[in-house]
Amino acid sequence: MIDLIQSSKAISFTAGEPSANLIPLDQLREAFSNMFNCDKSTFGYYHDPAGLVELREWIAHWMKEDGLLSNGYDWQNLILTIGSQEGLNLFTEAVLDPGDLVVTENPSYPEALLTFQKEGARIQTIPLDEYGPLPAALEYLAKTERVKVFYTIPCFQNPSGVVTSLNRRKEILSIAKRFNFVILEDDPYRHLWYDFAPPSSYLSLDENDGRVIYLGSLSKIIAPDIRCGWMVFPNWLSNTLKRLRVAQSLNLPTILHLGLMQFIFEINFENHLSHLREAYHIKRNAMVQGLKKHIPEKTFRFNIPSGGFFIWGEISGLNKPNDFARFAVQEEGIGILAGNIFSTSPNTSLKNNIRLSFAKVSPQEADEGCARLAKAIERYQQM
Amino acid sequence: MIDLIQSSKAISFTAGEPSANLIPLDQLREAFSNMFNCDKSTFGYYHDPAGLVELREWIAHWMKEDGLLSNGYDWQNLILTIGSQEGLNLFTEAVLDPGDLVVTENPSYPEALLTFQKEGARIQTIPLDEYGPLPAALEYLAKTERVKVFYTIPCFQNPSGVVTSLNRRKEILSIAKRFNFVILEDDPYRHLWYDFAPPSSYLSLDENDGRVIYLGSLSKIIAPDIRCGWMVFPNWLSNTLKRLRVAQSLNLPTILHLGLMQFIFEINFENHLSHLREAYHIKRNAMVQGLKKHIPEKTFRFNIPSGGFFIWGEISGLNKPNDFARFAVQEEGIGILAGNIFSTSPNTSLKNNIRLSFAKVSPQEADEGCARLAKAIERYQQM
Repeated sequence: MIDLIQSSKAISFTAGEPSANLIPLDQLREAFSNMFNCDKSTFGYYHDPAGLVELREWIAHWMKEDGLLSNGYDWQNLILTIGSQEGLNLFTEAVLDPGDLVVTENPSYPEALLTFQKEGARIQTIPLDEYGPLPAALEYLAKTERVKVFYTIPCFQNPSGVVTSLNRRKEILSIAKRFNFVILEDDPYRHLWYDFAPPSSYLSLDENDGRVIYLGSLSKIIAPDIRCGWMVFPNWLSNTLKRLRVAQSLNLPTILHLGLMQFIFEINFENHLSHLREAYHIKRNAMVQGLKKHIPEKTFRFNIPSGGFFIWGEISGLNKPNDFARFAVQEEGIGILAGNIFSTSPNTSLKNNIRLSFAKVSPQEADEGCARLAKAIERYQQM
Repeated sequence: MIDLIQSSKAISFTAGEPSANLIPLDQLREAFSNMFNCDKSTFGYYHDPAGLVELREWIAHWMKEDGLLSNGYDWQNLILTIGSQEGLNLFTEAVLDPGDLVVTENPSYPEALLTFQKEGARIQTIPLDEYGPLPAALEYLAKTERVKVFYTIPCFQNPSGVVTSLNRRKEILSIAKRFNFVILEDDPYRHLWYDFAPPSSYLSLDENDGRVIYLGSLSKIIAPDIRCGWMVFPNWLSNTLKRLRVAQSLNLPTILHLGLMQFIFEINFENHLSHLREAYHIKRNAMVQGLKKHIPEKTFRFNIPSGGFFIWGEISGLNKPNDFARFAVQEEGIGILAGNIFSTSPNTSLKNNIRLSFAKVSPQEADEGCARLAKAIERYQQM
């Protein structure tokens, strides 16, 4: 689909990555150049398998200031990862065995499902409403069979845009305690809020219980291609994770972590985040406005996400979302993602949904793209 | 042991990594700084799971020039990895199932064994002589039970320093064909030869058979902390490897690959390798000279490696190598590695061996270190 969009010069509403002009490239260049002035011997060693201590300290401090860490946790509860994706993989290898049951939200991030499935885990899903995943559905599953893990993206969920409310988080955590399963909290969009900051993390609500594993990422707020994420883990996972990291890659490129550390040291990180929030806020508003302007409400129902990158919508009676996505890009030059790719059963579920990303489109492109989408829907429904 | 050496200010003969003053730091700084002048949009994408195409093309071309590639292979048979270690892990996940039999050399690289064992593979070993692993031993094992993989470090083996001769390579490849198993060729030291270039790769001898998987690395010849290696794979592994990479980490940091590409473009790579060969040649000679000068031949028998970083030796009647290693660092301030850590059965095998690395010691340190080692052996044997 992405090849098709690029070759057809369509406007693309498909991006999962940040806007190129919001990548702080000049500051990264400066930081990486300065970084090489550090102690030369650094580059001659294999390093701590968990990653550069200074960067782990800085992230731990940042999370603590934001109230996101569990009580008593510090940098030693952090391991740096190659984006969140390696966190998903490390978690999977450390915690899951073939046949284990993972519960996810429906819809959810497809590459997480892929990672769980690679290990032979089974997946069951529960629905989301505007306050997050439904506790009753989770409890029902946990009563029926042994749940090992609940995987959730609680802030500006991919693809639904939903933020799980604080009350929901508490309810779900209490179910996890009662049925003794683990929560895997995947939180790459947290800092990209446009209306109000999201509630605190599951991790911070987990008091000395070691039940929450948290995944953070710099991909959306610095650059995806830095490939830097982190996992916060309870002490019981510490040895397993370090042994796995050694077996998998010895350690990650410290050269990257040193460059990032230098970048963070040289810029005002809070200002950087504010700048991103403002810029994406404008993009979000432009796309919402474009949708409202060009498409009748009853044709396309969608959420207005308070952060993140994604608008999740429903076209009534669509039924063949892949077919429609191909039609839209080929006939009207607008790239979107079919909703059913975010499902574990794409043939039967989420067949009326599409995901739109406003991350990489300017307000002008958003307006033009929404006009094209409107035409595509109209023509497709008349076929 | 490494902590002990650092805290005691001992001379260390333990390094598996290159010498800090042979890391081309100024050129790396220049290259990384220039690299950021490239097309900004690069950093805003998730990239090819197999890694930057230009770097894969360059490595494929380099290998082809050196006659190391299989006929008909090109950059599309390469996937970049986080050092060779991630290559070992990718291979393991792609090819091995629990219970599969991997045959390794004895001694061998411990972190490879760890990776195979993590997947639940069984390991059997075969001995090495001065021409490499013994074909008869491999054949005997293959007749006895189903061998899935033979893992070998054919150039300046870690830890033995042995180079597998061309004839041996052919013999072993023919056994692999006869009994239908795969050869995993781990080749990080190939370019660090001091007396004569090693024979061509198993990979190049594998004609349209897809039987050899090759692991290369820039860790020893640029910097370990760049964490850049690669795997050359036959077409039958292509889809599996790419799917695994996506599930494991989406893609590796292209920012690193771009920096490396720029570095390679800016320097004369052949001159760089020649410079390394000269510098390590001097280190190798200094340590051999120190050993000959300070330790009687019958007390310590050792190989003279024609490349790589390691001298593998035998102290007759040692029997407790870990105990001796601790004694040597604590009593005489000389750090060495006990040979049995390179064994799959450290309690019963390689108990008279030690590994010495000359990679990070100057000629003066080598001489002083060998004098200390001599004293340590003498005192230990009198205890």
